[in-house]
Amino acid sequence: MKTILLSAALIWFFSGAIAQPEVPVEKWTGKTILLIGAHPDDDSYSMATLGMLNANGNEVYIAILTTGNVGTQDPKLGMTDLAMIRKQEEQAALATIGIPTDHYINFGYDDGMLEYEDTKEVVAKLVRLIRKVQPDVLFAFDPGKGGQRWHKADHRAAAYLSADAARAAMWPLMFQGQITVEGLKAHTVPEYMLYDSADKDKNTWVDITGWEERKVDALSKYVSQFSAGWSDYKGPDLSPEEEEEMKEGLHRWLEHRDGVPMEGFRHYAGLPDDIGR
Amino acid sequence: MKTILLSAALIWFFSGAIAQPEVPVEKWTGKTILLIGAHPDDDSYSMATLGMLNANGNEVYIAILTTGNVGTQDPKLGMTDLAMIRKQEEQAALATIGIPTDHYINFGYDDGMLEYEDTKEVVAKLVRLIRKVQPDVLFAFDPGKGGQRWHKADHRAAAYLSADAARAAMWPLMFQGQITVEGLKAHTVPEYMLYDSADKDKNTWVDITGWEERKVDALSKYVSQFSAGWSDYKGPDLSPEEEEEMKEGLHRWLEHRDGVPMEGFRHYAGLPDDIGR
Amino acid sequence: MKTILLSAALIWFFSGAIAQPEVPVEKWTGKTILLIGAHPDDDSYSMATLGMLNANGNEVYIAILTTGNVGTQDPKLGMTDLAMIRKQEEQAALATIGIPTDHYINFGYDDGMLEYEDTKEVVAKLVRLIRKVQPDVLFAFDPGKGGQRWHKADHRAAAYLSADAARAAMWPLMFQGQITVEGLKAHTVPEYMLYDSADKDKNTWVDITGWEERKVDALSKYVSQFSAGWSDYKGPDLSPEEEEEMKEGLHRWLEHRDGVPMEGFRHYAGLPDDIGR
Amino acid sequence: MKTILLSAALIWFFSGAIAQPEVPVEKWTGKTILLIGAHPDDDSYSMATLGMLNANGNEVYIAILTTGNVGTQDPKLGMTDLAMIRKQEEQAALATIGIPTDHYINFGYDDGMLEYEDTKEVVAKLVRLIRKVQPDVLFAFDPGKGGQRWHKADHRAAAYLSADAARAAMWPLMFQGQITVEGLKAHTVPEYMLYDSADKDKNTWVDITGWEERKVDALSKYVSQFSAGWSDYKGPDLSPEEEEEMKEGLHRWLEHRDGVPMEGFRHYAGLPDDIGR
Amino acid sequence: MKTILLSAALIWFFSGAIAQPEVPVEKWTGKTILLIGAHPDDDSYSMATLGMLNANGNEVYIAILTTGNVGTQDPKLGMTDLAMIRKQEEQAALATIGIPTDHYINFGYDDGMLEYEDTKEVVAKLVRLIRKVQPDVLFAFDPGKGGQRWHKADHRAAAYLSADAARAAMWPLMFQGQITVEGLKAHTVPEYMLYDSADKDKNTWVDITGWEERKVDALSKYVSQFSAGWSDYKGPDLSPEEEEEMKEGLHRWLEHRDGVPMEGFRHYAGLPDDIGR
Amino acid sequence: MKTILLSAALIWFFSGAIAQPEVPVEKWTGKTILLIGAHPDDDSYSMATLGMLNANGNEVYIAILTTGNVGTQDPKLGMTDLAMIRKQEEQAALATIGIPTDHYINFGYDDGMLEYEDTKEVVAKLVRLIRKVQPDVLFAFDPGKGGQRWHKADHRAAAYLSADAARAAMWPLMFQGQITVEGLKAHTVPEYMLYDSADKDKNTWVDITGWEERKVDALSKYVSQFSAGWSDYKGPDLSPEEEEEMKEGLHRWLEHRDGVPMEGFRHYAGLPDDIGR
Repeated sequence: MKTILLSAALIWFFSGAIAQPEVPVEKWTGKTILLIGAHPDDDSYSMATLGMLNANGNEVYIAILTTGNVGTQDPKLGMTDLAMIRKQEEQAALATIGIPTDHYINFGYDDGMLEYEDTKEVVAKLVRLIRKVQPDVLFAFDPGKGGQRWHKADHRAAAYLSADAARAAMWPLMFQGQITVEGLKAHTVPEYMLYDSADKDKNTWVDITGWEERKVDALSKYVSQFSAGWSDYKGPDLSPEEEEEMKEGLHRWLEHRDGVPMEGFRHYAGLPDDIGR
Repeated sequence: MKTILLSAALIWFFSGAIAQPEVPVEKWTGKTILLIGAHPDDDSYSMATLGMLNANGNEVYIAILTTGNVGTQDPKLGMTDLAMIRKQEEQAALATIGIPTDHYINFGYDDGMLEYEDTKEVVAKLVRLIRKVQPDVLFAFDPGKGGQRWHKADHRAAAYLSADAARAAMWPLMFQGQITVEGLKAHTVPEYMLYDSADKDKNTWVDITGWEERKVDALSKYVSQFSAGWSDYKGPDLSPEEEEEMKEGLHRWLEHRDGVPMEGFRHYAGLPDDIGR
Repeated sequence: MKTILLSAALIWFFSGAIAQPEVPVEKWTGKTILLIGAHPDDDSYSMATLGMLNANGNEVYIAILTTGNVGTQDPKLGMTDLAMIRKQEEQAALATIGIPTDHYINFGYDDGMLEYEDTKEVVAKLVRLIRKVQPDVLFAFDPGKGGQRWHKADHRAAAYLSADAARAAMWPLMFQGQITVEGLKAHTVPEYMLYDSADKDKNTWVDITGWEERKVDALSKYVSQFSAGWSDYKGPDLSPEEEEEMKEGLHRWLEHRDGVPMEGFRHYAGLPDDIGR
Repeated sequence: MKTILLSAALIWFFSGAIAQPEVPVEKWTGKTILLIGAHPDDDSYSMATLGMLNANGNEVYIAILTTGNVGTQDPKLGMTDLAMIRKQEEQAALATIGIPTDHYINFGYDDGMLEYEDTKEVVAKLVRLIRKVQPDVLFAFDPGKGGQRWHKADHRAAAYLSADAARAAMWPLMFQGQITVEGLKAHTVPEYMLYDSADKDKNTWVDITGWEERKVDALSKYVSQFSAGWSDYKGPDLSPEEEEEMKEGLHRWLEHRDGVPMEGFRHYAGLPDDIGR
Repeated sequence: MKTILLSAALIWFFSGAIAQPEVPVEKWTGKTILLIGAHPDDDSYSMATLGMLNANGNEVYIAILTTGNVGTQDPKLGMTDLAMIRKQEEQAALATIGIPTDHYINFGYDDGMLEYEDTKEVVAKLVRLIRKVQPDVLFAFDPGKGGQRWHKADHRAAAYLSADAARAAMWPLMFQGQITVEGLKAHTVPEYMLYDSADKDKNTWVDITGWEERKVDALSKYVSQFSAGWSDYKGPDLSPEEEEEMKEGLHRWLEHRDGVPMEGFRHYAGLPDDIGR
Repeated sequence: MKTILLSAALIWFFSGAIAQPEVPVEKWTGKTILLIGAHPDDDSYSMATLGMLNANGNEVYIAILTTGNVGTQDPKLGMTDLAMIRKQEEQAALATIGIPTDHYINFGYDDGMLEYEDTKEVVAKLVRLIRKVQPDVLFAFDPGKGGQRWHKADHRAAAYLSADAARAAMWPLMFQGQITVEGLKAHTVPEYMLYDSADKDKNTWVDITGWEERKVDALSKYVSQFSAGWSDYKGPDLSPEEEEEMKEGLHRWLEHRDGVPMEGFRHYAGLPDDIGR
């Protein structure tokens, strides 16, 4: 497969893998953006950035691998209940930042069990998605730089399989049925925004000034994830006190650098082969 | 899961599993029909019946699991070449009997390797298809009556996994992400036309008088499967001599009963649990 | 592994595989009996026989592989609800025929998904169970005689894996950790009562006269399986009308031969290698 | 993949699948013969036939999938001991009927665990073997005619995977690395001698007159399989009494038809696709 | 599943993940402790700490995944021999530090093959164990902090699967059969002592003064692991010279900090989600 | 399995794991060298070192797991075409540095799919290879030191499975069929040259002065990997301009330290257990 020689070849013409985006993320426009996550709410790491990109004339798609149907301590909730709550919460959050409902894709896997699904099939589905959406930028859990990043189960699968899918998507002879019978085109994703990176690996900080409130509003839709809703879910609506308390907590959780609210990423541009280099 | 007690219960109200269709197949109308096969051309067993059903006002869908990309002895053909030839042939055959191109679904698996794919994923995809199409009748390879029918690889998977999928599709708690996040509905397929059955198990013979010629025309599109095209493929068009020879062979291969051209099936109506009883 | 030569050797001393039990089942006493099924209620095929054996001084154990947690059409029920209902029903049924609650073992697998579990692990667990219980007689779904019997998913796994486990249990070098670290002993099950057999293969009919009523009582505990409870479950207690209707149906479902109520089996005695011969 | 149309095409030129060998097996010469079995001693079903074929100028190869390393009840024997005993016994048996030691191939899998190995890999290895040996005739466990034949574990895998491998071996695009990098050639096995068939399916009886004694001698090498050696193995040499007793048993086990010693098979000639038809 | 929002929520009330134990390990009492390892002797990293905890009124359980049945270069030993030696050595070592024999659990997997077992099943078993034991503290191989720690095969599986199991054990809807039919309770392990950590990640050093000798005594029971016993095992008893030499080596292998004998760990307290953060 | 105690034992006699080779690589002679890679051209990292070792009287073997049959953007090339091109290129490159064609072994897996193959089987094959070749030194992708190194798919499998295989190869009871029936011997690889290591982990730099030109010549055989040949392959021969341009690029890609051309490795000597420590 693509090898060091190709990298050698590319180095002559391009400047090789680019760590920082040439155009600041805040200025991006006209791009197609795809985020892959494991659970409804894995977009929390980049919620404001996604909202801003959408507002700036980029197309933003959110693909989540599991339905989020086991993460509760509330004995009243079963798996189907929870899946429907998580779907409604995700859609409410996306609506808050302006992303249309039909840009939300869920793969329907059971929460917590992604590690035990057939990896070839999960990758095939992600490859199909990439070949359909043809994204300019892929947002994904950071699979690690140099070493394999430790993630909890599900996130680990989402991180590694996204990287593997980005790589496979560019070769027309891989998962070739998608090309020959489905009529899709191979696609090389040129640019990556990797979230939940190790702090030492973050190289790109998006200034989300003006988006803090909408981010907090969006995240506050994830009521079933919030500690009260987590053990005793009472529906999507919080009392004013609960809502205030939740939002206060969320505000405190936002990251700042030099007083400026930020979302931090490892940006990578280059062949997917070297996404973890 | 559904059990013998349920069967007991149903027996009180219905007359149990029905072997012969109440309305003759030739009179069916307004039904949604789904065929599941392993390879492009697995509809050959029922080509005339499908054409007739389509003509009589039924909606007919053809779902094929593999691209058919290895079945050649022609050294000039690679896997991608062959997949595209097989797709074109399948579409030409369906066009001949009047089935619209967008009623053809291909799952894109590599030919010959279906046994080695993850069975849970293949079943999940077939369940999704059944829940989407909501067929009144499923055409599938016969998984056997009493004993498990011997089929060659790929056909074996197509037979058993279709039966498993029909069964799973009726339970909303199975592959529940399809219900909760994709918004599909559980569906119980009430009636089955099982093809490539053992002769002793065939109970339903469809009179295809008037459809013989179109069946032969349709099958003659499968040039890459035909012995000359199989070892030295020269494109979709045969010379007049070759075409005549091929059609003659196909005519001889048609089944007749008492001089009437027929396609034979094992018809089954009842809960999918007992499809092999 | 054990081979035809061994069979040859055994033929000199024993009379080979014995089709009919030497002592009628109705006279058995002092035996340890193990039943393996897929779902709570798979003991329905042999409920009266089990009750009679228990009453006659045999130890009866019931091992069920799945929790039965998906087989409902009642939208109010989730997977955990259903598992608990099925457990309570199973225990109530066993209590009705006198089998103690702690003789019921459930392996906890999800209903409908047994085919997708790791077969080596399922077999290992069944081997462990056989080595613990050391049964004289194993009741299991009939894996088929001559050919592989068609069973619906879950039943298929239960049938084949039970046969495989009976075979592996006799070799101390298989799943040897059970011997070396757990201190279990290898065990050869000498006799089998295979249920849900093809009618042509049944060779042993147990006269259940005197047990019909208790069988019907036991089966009537499976309310969630019964058609009303199946789509709209209202708890374990039926109205008098519903109960009467259910029991009437069950009575009609009982098998008779020459007017005598019977449960039919394929009995097999011999090495597990030849269980399907 | 190869389809019904091809069969149609072939039917014009050939007479289709031939049940009985045209030339009696006793007259075969110059053929390459490959036997696939699961355990050392699975050649017992056809020992005399193999010896006769070898003597008549055919090349005979014996391929066994497992080492036979668990089939003992002798607590003094471990897995490695047993594997070496079984290998020595197999070689002694083959020497008795004149087959050279280097015609014996063992795949080294653990006995009893073949069902749990990766089927794609086992098939790939069998395909490689077939492409290397390029047999004219394949001896294999009968996978069944019409229905899937019930075999115990390991035999089941050997039966089904041999049929799958015969089928895959003919397509150059399957397991293509064997063709492209190893330089092997695709191969269609034209003729099959299926052993351990159901009696009703046997169609070919080989007269082994003159080979009975050598067959018994060969089988008597399988001391560790014999009942004394099975529970208390004392080395390859039996006492004269034990040897006499063993051979007497083996003589009684030989099959006869009309007083003539015979080995029975299901012979099949045709495309591997239809081996189970 | 549990997400960043929950962490956010918890941060308000608790102080978040705590690196150092609040009460020094040497003072712990009344806790339930569970250690998970891959091989008998994987408790060597923490032998003195475990002995001390046991002596201080904590309940200590040792769970080992494999039997240790392949790690020998002694050609006289087979797999069953070695498993029994390793079991006896483990029990002797635990007896030396006062841990009762019935606190030792072995899962019976074959040594060296843990990577090839079904991960879902291994995790399910570990989840069951955690839900049964309900430990306050889990000792496990360190899965890594930030990045995935490199461990040799078996240790790698033990490290990652322990972390995955700790995580799954807290969700009642995961492996729900354990809750619904087995009657276990979900359990959140609040505190972890991770052994075999990278030196840079160790944050907790347990002063084992007074336990050195017992640790050396305990480890000296692992005779089959010791170089002489490893290639030429002569039973559990060493000659006085061998014993002295072994103990001397073990003394030299003990870790010290500032002259104090220590065992070093990465301690972690918090949700299992962040065990590798 | 081998444990910390053994390490303790070894530490008394040897000085433990040795980071730097005692004899400089440039002076090695009489050694057997095995390289394991994923794709034809993965020897590029060490091409000059391999050539030098071969010239200095060492036996050098190159084992590649996949055929390299998908890494092209040239729509004219199919999988079989590409595999044959990659094989010819690999052989031409090896010929350039003097390594005989029959020292090149290819395992025939499909490119890009190695992660989805059965890991137990891939390890078994690598163990067999190690036991056959009995290498003094193994060249492999670096699996990481401390943490698991991030590699793209295929390289990741090649790295981790090589380490696992080196470890398993030393235990006669692992993959024991290779010992008992194939007659191979267990083998402990004592020394490793790990390539594609993190820069911080490289500890051994081989001076390739005098080999630069041959390295560039060898690498320039990989025309299908080179950017023109990658999208529009025109055969193995480049025009003089293309060849000059390619070689110029390759020269620029060579690593130097203090002006000396070098190939950098992580050298490790010791038990395979600690290859990642």
